[in-house]
Amino acid sequence: MQKIEHIGIAVKNLEAGNALFEKLLGKAHYKIEEVASEKVKTSFFQTGDSKIELLEATDPNSPIAKFIEKRGEGIHHIAFEVSDIHAEMERLRNEGFILLNEQPKRGADNKLVCFLHPKSANGVLVELCQSLLERG
Amino acid sequence: MQKIEHIGIAVKNLEAGNALFEKLLGKAHYKIEEVASEKVKTSFFQTGDSKIELLEATDPNSPIAKFIEKRGEGIHHIAFEVSDIHAEMERLRNEGFILLNEQPKRGADNKLVCFLHPKSANGVLVELCQSLLERG
Repeated sequence: MQKIEHIGIAVKNLEAGNALFEKLLGKAHYKIEEVASEKVKTSFFQTGDSKIELLEATDPNSPIAKFIEKRGEGIHHIAFEVSDIHAEMERLRNEGFILLNEQPKRGADNKLVCFLHPKSANGVLVELCQSLLERG
Repeated sequence: MQKIEHIGIAVKNLEAGNALFEKLLGKAHYKIEEVASEKVKTSFFQTGDSKIELLEATDPNSPIAKFIEKRGEGIHHIAFEVSDIHAEMERLRNEGFILLNEQPKRGADNKLVCFLHPKSANGVLVELCQSLLERG
């Protein structure tokens, strides 16, 4: 785990969320990206060496829609940057963490990602992400 | 807002939380600190340029005890580093954010802190923190 790559925040409406976080952070989001496989539309804000990722559901069956239905808007996950996601998944599996996907999958922002079950991590939904760009 | 200073995570038991996050992050916490005014015991892990702060309630009336009672263990707040907390509080008040304390107060880790009401920030409990050390 090299750093906090981003914090994911579930919002009902991305446009309203962007306006609010622009006021909060004092700067605008720098991109919007839809991740069809996860049924979300995302926006990114840079803050220091990490990012804030806002997530809006694009489908009532999206995990984000279900999260908001259950808990309301708010912090959804923490993503940590890793240099070798396969090695890190193997290490964490051996440490007793429950992986939500057995193989890395494509996430937003040109990343390979894997989620850990919150039940195995003090209620925190943890994402591992490895940048595909850094692999050259 | 200069960067994510830390992510606060509510845990039932700090010792168990420390053991788990040591496995997750691959490194141990570097300090434990009790903040009597907030009725919490905290531990800190460095990750990149930010920190993970675990929080255990020291009293059933602690905000952390109430949070866990209502929502279970998990991510409690995001703290952003600011260089001038008074100026930032004034700016955010003018932008329509609700401040949970009218004046900065002493937090863990030698910081002046102020919280924003989650209702004014898409369900996110936001902390502003200014390092007292940096003021010299």
